[in-house]
Amino acid sequence: MEEVITKRPREDEDNNGNDAAANGISSIIPGWFSEMSPMWPGEAHSLKIEEILYQGKSEYQDVMVFQSATYGKVLVLDGVIQVTQRDECAYQEMITHLPLCSIQNPKKVLVIGGGDGGVLREVSRYPSVEQINICEIDKMVVDVSKQFFPNLAVGFEDPRVNLHIGDGVAFLKNAPEGTYDAVIVDSSDPIGPAQELFEKPFFESVARALRPGGVVCTQAESIWLHMHIIEAIVSNCRQVFKGSVNYAWTTVPTYPSGVIGFMLCSTEGPQVDFQHPVHKIDESDDLNKSKGPLKFYNPEIHSAAFCLPSFAKRVIGSNTN
Amino acid sequence: MEEVITKRPREDEDNNGNDAAANGISSIIPGWFSEMSPMWPGEAHSLKIEEILYQGKSEYQDVMVFQSATYGKVLVLDGVIQVTQRDECAYQEMITHLPLCSIQNPKKVLVIGGGDGGVLREVSRYPSVEQINICEIDKMVVDVSKQFFPNLAVGFEDPRVNLHIGDGVAFLKNAPEGTYDAVIVDSSDPIGPAQELFEKPFFESVARALRPGGVVCTQAESIWLHMHIIEAIVSNCRQVFKGSVNYAWTTVPTYPSGVIGFMLCSTEGPQVDFQHPVHKIDESDDLNKSKGPLKFYNPEIHSAAFCLPSFAKRVIGSNTN
Repeated sequence: MEEVITKRPREDEDNNGNDAAANGISSIIPGWFSEMSPMWPGEAHSLKIEEILYQGKSEYQDVMVFQSATYGKVLVLDGVIQVTQRDECAYQEMITHLPLCSIQNPKKVLVIGGGDGGVLREVSRYPSVEQINICEIDKMVVDVSKQFFPNLAVGFEDPRVNLHIGDGVAFLKNAPEGTYDAVIVDSSDPIGPAQELFEKPFFESVARALRPGGVVCTQAESIWLHMHIIEAIVSNCRQVFKGSVNYAWTTVPTYPSGVIGFMLCSTEGPQVDFQHPVHKIDESDDLNKSKGPLKFYNPEIHSAAFCLPSFAKRVIGSNTN
Repeated sequence: MEEVITKRPREDEDNNGNDAAANGISSIIPGWFSEMSPMWPGEAHSLKIEEILYQGKSEYQDVMVFQSATYGKVLVLDGVIQVTQRDECAYQEMITHLPLCSIQNPKKVLVIGGGDGGVLREVSRYPSVEQINICEIDKMVVDVSKQFFPNLAVGFEDPRVNLHIGDGVAFLKNAPEGTYDAVIVDSSDPIGPAQELFEKPFFESVARALRPGGVVCTQAESIWLHMHIIEAIVSNCRQVFKGSVNYAWTTVPTYPSGVIGFMLCSTEGPQVDFQHPVHKIDESDDLNKSKGPLKFYNPEIHSAAFCLPSFAKRVIGSNTN
């Protein structure tokens, strides 16, 4: 339906009529942040700014934090909303508990990206986990999160967490084979520093680093906007992962089109049935007690996330288990 | 979390800095339509306008149609997006097939609102249906749809359809008791002409007009934005409908927060298990053949729609069957 643009256009090619990509602040609605991108042409979601709290430029991207009128604090990278305090629960809980509730007693977990700490916060709910490695490319994201998003950055305080600042692709290439029970790829869109995280060589590194029957969950765009990207990711994953290959999705109001998807795959070995979690978290579960109750995730929403609209099912095909 | 405003503010109370509510076109992003409302303060979704096709003022509301850059034609009432050609399938198919696939062989169906004809298009897929009554308050909506949205207005061409222009509340009060197998309330938000459609006396009229074990499906706002409204609707429905009372939801990218909910209730009589459709539409079903294949709805997405995030479940309570 829409053209998919996978490379950032030069400034003079950007016909969105604003400089959002350059500095993250809309010049067209004074006092508002407008999210415009060639990834979703012809539409923009805007949030009213109460106060700009931080603006910086790292080696990799523009970093901004603002206090919004109705969504709490907002983290923006290269003009794209990554996190708002009001709806971050949906993304962080789903990208973490979809894979971790699908296997018994995860012990070693690797997070690629996720420098805000939100995924770490969710991984650290599991008493079975012994080691949480995280490889984030941009130290500024970690620092900014620690300063402005204590409820996300709390994830870094767990003594099981080892933070590596560096390239996730290189980190995985050097990871010992068959190490991890789960890898969670919490990346931004494939038009900035995260581009390689959507390509086949990266998935091969992930598969190599997982134990037999280990699982990966990776951010996989919107069925409403990016079916071509999703089709390519699914095709790559079907070639690389010899266990099962599934697409799931959930609602996040401040992401474009209001939804975000996840690829969930397992390597050859003990069978993983992603659609039916082996760990069924209920209100009395230890996971709900340790860090306060989960706001979004529960076993029913887990299974429901794998049910696709007909237009998506026809392209992606059936989830396999 | 946020204050819920249920009445339209006077012009001088509107602090959104635009006149969207007055004429439907944003004056602050030239060439774009921005949807701002006291129903979702502090945020706005904007679509790039290619061409404004229609602007009118009916007895009830401002009516606008524009050609957007990436969402096809868009119907706007009182500054709020009702339909875009790109994502209307999700709303029309879900609000229709959630109730109609939950009962055997629906014969008499009433649609309140729905003047664009999209719900009629979906109802007319059922060969069992003998009579489709529709009561829309605003003739301009019907006329505009027939002119600009032939794929929606096609619903009016079915000979089983009887169109009544008038007040849905009065129409239902005068409806013979125990008549309908299903009532579908396709309304706009509760701050304009649709306000009464969210109140208890209206639900009582619906219940009276339904046969024993008949079903109603009514537009019921967003769990991310309007939990207070939803709580009140659920409470009203629990008092009125003695069969089952359920909340379901789905994704619609151009609706605020990207989701929309539905109340699904049945009257005392034969039990209705909304979460498990009795009519399981598959690709070879007659319903898929008569009007082209369904784009969004399928039996898995039907059941998944009743699974709620934990924060919503804690307020709404369990769906009852």
